[in-house]
Amino acid sequence: MNHLQNRARMLISCPDQPGIVATVSRFLYEQGANIVDSDQHTTDPSGGLFFMRIEFDLPKLEDAYEALERRFEEIARPLQMSWRIAFANRVKKIAIFVSKEDHCLLELLWRKKSGELGADIAMVISNHPDLRETVEAYRIPFYHIPVTSDTKQEAERQQLELVKGQVDLVVLARYMQIISPHFIDQYPNSIINIHHSFLPAFVGGNPYAQAYKRGVKIIGATAHYITEDLDAGPIIEQDVQRVNHKDQVEDLKRIGRHIERTVFAKAVNWHVEDRILVYGNKTVVFV
Amino acid sequence: MNHLQNRARMLISCPDQPGIVATVSRFLYEQGANIVDSDQHTTDPSGGLFFMRIEFDLPKLEDAYEALERRFEEIARPLQMSWRIAFANRVKKIAIFVSKEDHCLLELLWRKKSGELGADIAMVISNHPDLRETVEAYRIPFYHIPVTSDTKQEAERQQLELVKGQVDLVVLARYMQIISPHFIDQYPNSIINIHHSFLPAFVGGNPYAQAYKRGVKIIGATAHYITEDLDAGPIIEQDVQRVNHKDQVEDLKRIGRHIERTVFAKAVNWHVEDRILVYGNKTVVFV
Amino acid sequence: MNHLQNRARMLISCPDQPGIVATVSRFLYEQGANIVDSDQHTTDPSGGLFFMRIEFDLPKLEDAYEALERRFEEIARPLQMSWRIAFANRVKKIAIFVSKEDHCLLELLWRKKSGELGADIAMVISNHPDLRETVEAYRIPFYHIPVTSDTKQEAERQQLELVKGQVDLVVLARYMQIISPHFIDQYPNSIINIHHSFLPAFVGGNPYAQAYKRGVKIIGATAHYITEDLDAGPIIEQDVQRVNHKDQVEDLKRIGRHIERTVFAKAVNWHVEDRILVYGNKTVVFV
Amino acid sequence: MNHLQNRARMLISCPDQPGIVATVSRFLYEQGANIVDSDQHTTDPSGGLFFMRIEFDLPKLEDAYEALERRFEEIARPLQMSWRIAFANRVKKIAIFVSKEDHCLLELLWRKKSGELGADIAMVISNHPDLRETVEAYRIPFYHIPVTSDTKQEAERQQLELVKGQVDLVVLARYMQIISPHFIDQYPNSIINIHHSFLPAFVGGNPYAQAYKRGVKIIGATAHYITEDLDAGPIIEQDVQRVNHKDQVEDLKRIGRHIERTVFAKAVNWHVEDRILVYGNKTVVFV
Repeated sequence: MNHLQNRARMLISCPDQPGIVATVSRFLYEQGANIVDSDQHTTDPSGGLFFMRIEFDLPKLEDAYEALERRFEEIARPLQMSWRIAFANRVKKIAIFVSKEDHCLLELLWRKKSGELGADIAMVISNHPDLRETVEAYRIPFYHIPVTSDTKQEAERQQLELVKGQVDLVVLARYMQIISPHFIDQYPNSIINIHHSFLPAFVGGNPYAQAYKRGVKIIGATAHYITEDLDAGPIIEQDVQRVNHKDQVEDLKRIGRHIERTVFAKAVNWHVEDRILVYGNKTVVFV
Repeated sequence: MNHLQNRARMLISCPDQPGIVATVSRFLYEQGANIVDSDQHTTDPSGGLFFMRIEFDLPKLEDAYEALERRFEEIARPLQMSWRIAFANRVKKIAIFVSKEDHCLLELLWRKKSGELGADIAMVISNHPDLRETVEAYRIPFYHIPVTSDTKQEAERQQLELVKGQVDLVVLARYMQIISPHFIDQYPNSIINIHHSFLPAFVGGNPYAQAYKRGVKIIGATAHYITEDLDAGPIIEQDVQRVNHKDQVEDLKRIGRHIERTVFAKAVNWHVEDRILVYGNKTVVFV
Repeated sequence: MNHLQNRARMLISCPDQPGIVATVSRFLYEQGANIVDSDQHTTDPSGGLFFMRIEFDLPKLEDAYEALERRFEEIARPLQMSWRIAFANRVKKIAIFVSKEDHCLLELLWRKKSGELGADIAMVISNHPDLRETVEAYRIPFYHIPVTSDTKQEAERQQLELVKGQVDLVVLARYMQIISPHFIDQYPNSIINIHHSFLPAFVGGNPYAQAYKRGVKIIGATAHYITEDLDAGPIIEQDVQRVNHKDQVEDLKRIGRHIERTVFAKAVNWHVEDRILVYGNKTVVFV
Repeated sequence: MNHLQNRARMLISCPDQPGIVATVSRFLYEQGANIVDSDQHTTDPSGGLFFMRIEFDLPKLEDAYEALERRFEEIARPLQMSWRIAFANRVKKIAIFVSKEDHCLLELLWRKKSGELGADIAMVISNHPDLRETVEAYRIPFYHIPVTSDTKQEAERQQLELVKGQVDLVVLARYMQIISPHFIDQYPNSIINIHHSFLPAFVGGNPYAQAYKRGVKIIGATAHYITEDLDAGPIIEQDVQRVNHKDQVEDLKRIGRHIERTVFAKAVNWHVEDRILVYGNKTVVFV
């Protein structure tokens, strides 16, 4: 028996107004729920947006949650809430897209094995065959779908066929291909990319070469949800490391890899634990 | 008119049990309060301690708060709550104790002037006369109370006479004298010290010399509430900086000063904003 | 008597080739100098540029240095060296340009008073009168030279008249006016600006508002030599701090101020201690 | 052909005196060497110890190095130098000791595979059988040598038999057994341990539990050479991460693992690249 089997997370966003916390927490109390953690945020004290995340335990959650959702909708409608309840024991499924660089992939595989990633890795899809052995050693299906400019559309069709209905989250672990708007539409705010620079600095290709050329003293990495605008989606997490004049482009790549894998894994975990709310082009991350 | 004049902060700690958030937030809603921010923490999901900080606005707070406190007590008693409501427009008063090193003192003076410190500096007390001119330039009373092993008790009597009833918080801005248990009793969890090491490493005198001798690669500073045990009180905040073999003791002191002033000012601000709850020998800091 | 009175720093850049270190260190040894510290860098092991900084003590340096420079020129010419010898006891003079924000100015004033800045602050020039009292309290001349779009050229003429021949380094301590190419020409690689973002992100005005809008999770500050291209000169130092969704633009400004003053003071100190070599649009910083 | 095949690193420590750099660099020049990088440090400008690391290329190093060492000894003796020349193409061999926690081991395996570790992993020795499969997948010999209080001496005898003459460096990748003085004597300054705290805080067992109990706001990890005094040997590298009141002991362990693996891998790499000089109980690290 799982200690999370009666655990749920409620995520709410709505126009701010007095009494929201009171209403929601009273509702949960009346259902017999025990609040384990809660966090909230208002974008602007006067007339802004209100965001809330509540983690709670409810005895016999399995049997109760349809009724729970139905009853909560009655409360939510008059307050114009967008909301969802995520049940912790419904483990999310992830598809990892990767090309040849293995460090972000390996970090997720290792964290999964270590019990640090609360999701299942359902499959790995790559435009190169190189990492098949690595992936299959973890008994995870590996699909090699080559991508050329001619076959791009067909390749994406195959990818979608594999993931559709099978995974909740797609993560681009240094996947060096552009995802089409059509694909993005299928997974709104559910495709995480790791960009190897401190965005918005060094958008586009070869960010480490750009950073070297500019002579920066710190390099970074950024995990973000992808949108149709390249490298411009809502930022989830960023981190940096100090570099100096001795560091060549190769050094920046090496140092950067360690930033990338940590930032990427953090962002994936936060998504999996339902800690991220997106509004406009920004994120609220409740940690 | 002050935008904080109707702002209050409620701090609660009690044994954890279902329904606390619901009860408290409903109470506030019924009084007409609007919750601006709230944060909570449970030490242990099963049967631990529950801590909560709620920041709220209540129209005509000035007139309402006696009734507010009286009514809340009825709710608090059955739940065995320790609680207090701090009114943001009752600005806290600080006494700064200092010796010869001026950097932590100057940081507070500068932050006060810049509007970054939401408290009044009521007085500065020093066992040396050196910083009188610096302090008085800010139109703050400066008291020189020399301390020798013979006069220690009398000096502390004079200090207490100055601060008692006049200040809410005493901060030791690199004050190089031990505070007696008798003094500490008058200001429970209300005397903040800055220790110039990463506690619990390098307790006691000359921590930078100790750090140099040990050959550490990172040095730090620690702000904590003082207790009768030297350098062992509840830690509020810590920070560090990287050093290397080139750095002599003098370099560590110089680098350390910048860590100390930042850590110290952060801790003082958090206390002033009622963000810190102490339990046992630890702190919950809601930021 | 000053412990630095016989201390000098030699800075060299030239095409890389075998034997440079041997030639230079032998030369210094033969003059009776004792090398206290040395550092070097080659941009590319095969046929790149070579940079070197040597700190040395030479008895009776005051009497010896003309001969020293004359003799070294004989060695330097065949190796196509750019070089200079800076005598530590010829204390550099700084002009601080400031507008209304005082934190970067105060940091330098405080570091000067604390013995952490090895240069003289010869004057402060401002386009606003606000900081006169602050500056004059330190017995430093304060010049108020208003700048409008009409008077810009004349204002700059007055500024140049004040600084020319009087200062070695101009530092822009949040000075909110563009410096003209004509002015920059007078102080090549000798005008340090602090930009309140992590360059090259958020070039131009209101970088904190830009950062807020983009939703970054880390903000930064950059000290750089100014060139004709706005915010695009050689970067000397950068640092960052973590922020989150709770932080409004005002919070970013407040947090940023502490990054700015530290980064700025570091960069100024490194220039003063002759630790920076510029090549192309980048810096080598020997620390 | 290897680009490092003519690369060597000379490490020197001796009493400081004028002319050392000149003498050494002239010697190398006369042998036909090209200095690629050099760094130096003097513990005390007046009469301290002098440390130097020079990286150089010498054509046909393979044939030249016996003569090189013989000739250099003539220079070194009168200056009372301790010195050694490490030839970069003689790749160092490492034995990894591990127990059950795999993160430090995996980090080295992954860095080796990625080309980030310039040494060979000759063997892995463990007191538990658990990690055999992981290690052997990398085609590295795995030896399971159980250790009990009764068999400790015999176990160490077996370990020494395996490593003696076969490895240059022993690294303790969270190996939870004490190494005896006898073993340490065989590998002076060549056994690197990772301690899971910011030393000297939290020496001994369960440092994360100690850190939790003390309520620190930052946790760390320390890589050091082991000596007979537990957790008291020369520190090579340290790093830290911020934690808060929400983090339970299990969280500290999880966060700490990521600090440990990075600090550990850095320290191992620096040793492998001959960047560390030990004096007394401290290190000079030339990076």
